[in-house]
Amino acid sequence: MTNDIERLTKEHILAKERMALKRWNVGDPSGFLEISNSDVTYIDPYVDKRLEGYDALKSLYEGLRGKIIVDVSEMIETRVDLYNDIAILTYKLFSSTSQGETYWYCTEVYRLIDNENWRIIHTHWSIAK
Amino acid sequence: MTNDIERLTKEHILAKERMALKRWNVGDPSGFLEISNSDVTYIDPYVDKRLEGYDALKSLYEGLRGKIIVDVSEMIETRVDLYNDIAILTYKLFSSTSQGETYWYCTEVYRLIDNENWRIIHTHWSIAK
Repeated sequence: MTNDIERLTKEHILAKERMALKRWNVGDPSGFLEISNSDVTYIDPYVDKRLEGYDALKSLYEGLRGKIIVDVSEMIETRVDLYNDIAILTYKLFSSTSQGETYWYCTEVYRLIDNENWRIIHTHWSIAK
Repeated sequence: MTNDIERLTKEHILAKERMALKRWNVGDPSGFLEISNSDVTYIDPYVDKRLEGYDALKSLYEGLRGKIIVDVSEMIETRVDLYNDIAILTYKLFSSTSQGETYWYCTEVYRLIDNENWRIIHTHWSIAK
């Protein structure tokens, strides 16, 4: 039973991430915004500083809305580690756009909020060599 | 009281990381190994795949022992977010070696093991542009 719940939780989190990426790929950052918590922190190679809080992330993402179209995107080697109300999702992402092909690493820390919704509290994107 | 404990916990985690970095800078990876948990996962730009487990991390680090000397190293904009027995430490690291100067981003997820020791369960290093 516990194993079933764990397995379903992991699948649920992966499905959330996949859905957010699917929208991201057509220029819509709202998928990620809708699952990011108010206290989210965010790192990618292009931000000068770690972003702190939903509003900072929203500001970044709104500036990119409609500007990034990803033709091919594949999550590789996904892994979810569960620690009670915290889940650490890690994966590699292959991404192909008009700018070229890139392999990314991604860490997403999800937290179960109000015993109801898994939401992102930390994101770290990086470029794999 | 709670705030005091939180503050002390954050300082404790920062001190652990600083001590590990201090040893790293003279070619000694054991500082990080000693505070990494058996189930640690690890990402940096140069690994082909996420490393899974202490032995995989040890193998990487032992290959670097004595080979990386960091002349100047500074943790910038450190932040620790506490969620019960999980802590997310993020910071930027300025690093100067004979190979050049680099700004890194780092995410460390620490977990309180056996209600006693905070240990790293996930590391993500990336190069900031």
